[in-house]
Amino acid sequence: MERNKKPAILLLACPDTKGIIANVTKFIFGNDWNILHLEQHIDYETKTLFMRVEWELEDSGIKKDFEKEFSPIANKYHMNYTVKLSEEIKNVAIFASKEEHCLFEILLKNKSQELKCNISIVISNHENLKEICKFFGVDFYLIEKNKENKVLKEREELELLKKYKIDLIILAKYMQIFTPEFVNKYENRMISVHHSFLPAFKGAKPYLQAYNRGVKLIGATAHYVTADLDNGPIIEQEVVRVSHRDSLNDLINRGKDLEKLVLTRAVKKHLENKILVYSNKTVVFE
Amino acid sequence: MERNKKPAILLLACPDTKGIIANVTKFIFGNDWNILHLEQHIDYETKTLFMRVEWELEDSGIKKDFEKEFSPIANKYHMNYTVKLSEEIKNVAIFASKEEHCLFEILLKNKSQELKCNISIVISNHENLKEICKFFGVDFYLIEKNKENKVLKEREELELLKKYKIDLIILAKYMQIFTPEFVNKYENRMISVHHSFLPAFKGAKPYLQAYNRGVKLIGATAHYVTADLDNGPIIEQEVVRVSHRDSLNDLINRGKDLEKLVLTRAVKKHLENKILVYSNKTVVFE
Amino acid sequence: MERNKKPAILLLACPDTKGIIANVTKFIFGNDWNILHLEQHIDYETKTLFMRVEWELEDSGIKKDFEKEFSPIANKYHMNYTVKLSEEIKNVAIFASKEEHCLFEILLKNKSQELKCNISIVISNHENLKEICKFFGVDFYLIEKNKENKVLKEREELELLKKYKIDLIILAKYMQIFTPEFVNKYENRMISVHHSFLPAFKGAKPYLQAYNRGVKLIGATAHYVTADLDNGPIIEQEVVRVSHRDSLNDLINRGKDLEKLVLTRAVKKHLENKILVYSNKTVVFE
Amino acid sequence: MERNKKPAILLLACPDTKGIIANVTKFIFGNDWNILHLEQHIDYETKTLFMRVEWELEDSGIKKDFEKEFSPIANKYHMNYTVKLSEEIKNVAIFASKEEHCLFEILLKNKSQELKCNISIVISNHENLKEICKFFGVDFYLIEKNKENKVLKEREELELLKKYKIDLIILAKYMQIFTPEFVNKYENRMISVHHSFLPAFKGAKPYLQAYNRGVKLIGATAHYVTADLDNGPIIEQEVVRVSHRDSLNDLINRGKDLEKLVLTRAVKKHLENKILVYSNKTVVFE
Repeated sequence: MERNKKPAILLLACPDTKGIIANVTKFIFGNDWNILHLEQHIDYETKTLFMRVEWELEDSGIKKDFEKEFSPIANKYHMNYTVKLSEEIKNVAIFASKEEHCLFEILLKNKSQELKCNISIVISNHENLKEICKFFGVDFYLIEKNKENKVLKEREELELLKKYKIDLIILAKYMQIFTPEFVNKYENRMISVHHSFLPAFKGAKPYLQAYNRGVKLIGATAHYVTADLDNGPIIEQEVVRVSHRDSLNDLINRGKDLEKLVLTRAVKKHLENKILVYSNKTVVFE
Repeated sequence: MERNKKPAILLLACPDTKGIIANVTKFIFGNDWNILHLEQHIDYETKTLFMRVEWELEDSGIKKDFEKEFSPIANKYHMNYTVKLSEEIKNVAIFASKEEHCLFEILLKNKSQELKCNISIVISNHENLKEICKFFGVDFYLIEKNKENKVLKEREELELLKKYKIDLIILAKYMQIFTPEFVNKYENRMISVHHSFLPAFKGAKPYLQAYNRGVKLIGATAHYVTADLDNGPIIEQEVVRVSHRDSLNDLINRGKDLEKLVLTRAVKKHLENKILVYSNKTVVFE
Repeated sequence: MERNKKPAILLLACPDTKGIIANVTKFIFGNDWNILHLEQHIDYETKTLFMRVEWELEDSGIKKDFEKEFSPIANKYHMNYTVKLSEEIKNVAIFASKEEHCLFEILLKNKSQELKCNISIVISNHENLKEICKFFGVDFYLIEKNKENKVLKEREELELLKKYKIDLIILAKYMQIFTPEFVNKYENRMISVHHSFLPAFKGAKPYLQAYNRGVKLIGATAHYVTADLDNGPIIEQEVVRVSHRDSLNDLINRGKDLEKLVLTRAVKKHLENKILVYSNKTVVFE
Repeated sequence: MERNKKPAILLLACPDTKGIIANVTKFIFGNDWNILHLEQHIDYETKTLFMRVEWELEDSGIKKDFEKEFSPIANKYHMNYTVKLSEEIKNVAIFASKEEHCLFEILLKNKSQELKCNISIVISNHENLKEICKFFGVDFYLIEKNKENKVLKEREELELLKKYKIDLIILAKYMQIFTPEFVNKYENRMISVHHSFLPAFKGAKPYLQAYNRGVKLIGATAHYVTADLDNGPIIEQEVVRVSHRDSLNDLINRGKDLEKLVLTRAVKKHLENKILVYSNKTVVFE
């Protein structure tokens, strides 16, 4: 019932015009490959076409040739594209602080193959998550960063990320702000969870803000990190009903379930190469 | 299965202390009345107790005596309270503009007895809803209000509200801002629907704001109107999932369903005397 | 921002093999048409490819030629397909009984252009919806059908459907069972709403069944009607939270909102030619 | 903001009549205790009143006297009641099989004080969860039960439950059926999660059933276990949207999140003494 062959995935964006899908699918058919799934989307404001094609390869050594042979089409339509083999497992670094629920959820879902990545390192400014990492067999690094030593410590972090060949950074409730220089190095490859229904309640203590405002639903938001705090492209959001009966502590606890849900859903979509970013928004293919 | 007798409802707020529930229920028991439902809530920050008791009366002429006999308890505990007979049907005025979906929904739910009120008048600054009102047998008034003539026209509106003995004003997508003077006259008796998940996207064109921000859920909020625009006590909120596939127009259309839902739910709670307001928040009893 | 040209829509199903998308899109590109949206889905159990392509036509007189020119591709891949012009407005008949909320919702959403169809007739076994139909300018027919006269009355109904050239039948809480002969004539063109989360609580009085079982969510389901009662292909479902506090009557009222939502969403998808049926399931494109 | 004193909780059911709330609250007030929260519910079909009162004790040694002094009221109104001190931590046994997500969730939420219980033992028919239990410091017992040795092995289990003074059994996807004798010993103290929206898809392989039926939402249900499989009183349900795009495996994975949510919510309500069972339904207080 489930298919076995490892597919290749082409993800592209280009100005919309006639013939793009025809030429891309003709190219795939010309190589005698079978398309498993094709999705496209046109943004009519920017007149941009977004597309994701997944097809079965007989031979996964094909990737290098693909880029050469596909370049005439890519050039003709001014495509911004990437091609991935689904067997290329991404290396992931998780930044966490004291809270463990998001870290646990990601480690657990990776262990059970719901997420399919290689979680290489966990970096934290506190020591309490060390034992968990040991249990899951993930290298743990304590980097005690603060406002004063931030630039210095980020250099240390960047070296670790380089050493472990990190493709994706997950901020699992890290609660620290990175410098724009750091953020820009991992553009669209750094996912964070904010514990509110953005753009409501940006910044500090969103549950307290929500409690004070008396909202009837609370939310959580997973997004790509940009230099503009809590304003990056939104990937996933979820809410849950609350009432006057819920204390601030109840909100925090109920919110944890949301944070886990949106963060792991967003990471899964990213790992499956299903997200394209434009105009500070995301196209999230199914 | 459904109970028949018309109940009385006591709604109160007072500083929390020992003995309040005991004394209120003793009073009701002392009159040989049967409690149908009792709910209470304590806000631990303001140390305030909120309570709603519903009981069966043999004789609905009891209300006047109740107030006299209950006053020693009310005074002792410094209660702010109201007592209502469920057979007292509230007179409602609806303010609407061009959009008809919220108006229709309220008229329809009132006709089918889901809402139980007397919809006396519809006031609008456009004529296109006149026929609907005629169909449902509701008096329609065209009052062409704008920034210049607002104070004058509000006087006209206030006279109509007085003439029809209006207990509750519903702003069914009225799209006009009232003066603080007007608003204050109907404090906690004026319900509006804002087409966003407040406090996100206050003010004009919330769907366009949501579209531009690329949110993955859109919402609607029903709240009591205060002089501070879109910042009144929230009664009900609901959301629906959207995606990059949805155009601005799709958002507007999907939002209409939410607007209908939250507005009618909020109105129903108000008509059933289930809402208490404090610290710009609401206690909404079940 | 919204696009203006009337698109054509091709909806197809065929055994999955290499080259289908390439050949279809090549054909469209060969005619110098611009693809607006393409979605496909492969069911790996039946090895079937489903596809929907929407493209801009310069000239809507193109349809007849399309069928002739497209037939080599259709034949080669053993396609089961339809091509529609979005400007072809479907003629709709609504069957209703005494309850008016679903009928009203459809009429209203059609009036506001959320649904885009021509609602030609309403057929009911009761007279109480006559005035509503008059208000919306829709022909109303009273056909008092019961178990005894069913076959005879259905003949009458079929003649009306023929006379009005009906493309789609909506059962807006009609509460009557059609003969298999009738149903088969409108296979995949007859949408009903069942007031439960199917397959739970099939048959009569689903809210009572739900109430007695003590469920914590109630649902509604829109589906294509088949001869096997309440077992047709599901198009859309929705739920809402209930509690021990809700009486049977509360469940019925809260369910009405769900019924309206799922029925209108399902009808909208059908009118937009976004549904394909296979193995008693539906592919519902975005 | 959060209150500190350990409250006492009275949970009662009795035939509805006048004066019950008045007498119970008078009793509490007479002891100079402060009520924190009172909720009641009347089932009009069985004419039964359900009530939960939570109040602050100065002295937790009060429980014994309470039972003696309260008995005149309890007898007068034919009450079925329990009184608990919130500081009495329940001993919990978890039965699990191979799947770890529910077990992990409960252990984690207990560690972070979202659940407040003493998880004494985990019993499983497989060894793979042993390491997790060790990590969380919980005793693990491997009891390899099958159809043939069930009665014998259950005796072993019952002895363990007795030895550890277990108050609540959680079946965290245990996938084994207990004998009615076993089940009856833990009536209303044994919570299981079924991976469907009950009563749809009872029995084996509910996700496969859901997949084959083509539903658009999948669900999970937490309920008290009764001798009648999957028919016990429902405590909590939740659903998530799926589509034709989701494979059976996707359904299973998305369902895991639901299973965790409903099971932990149900356990939390039980631990907080907020559930009363009647007519195979539950009253779940807020």
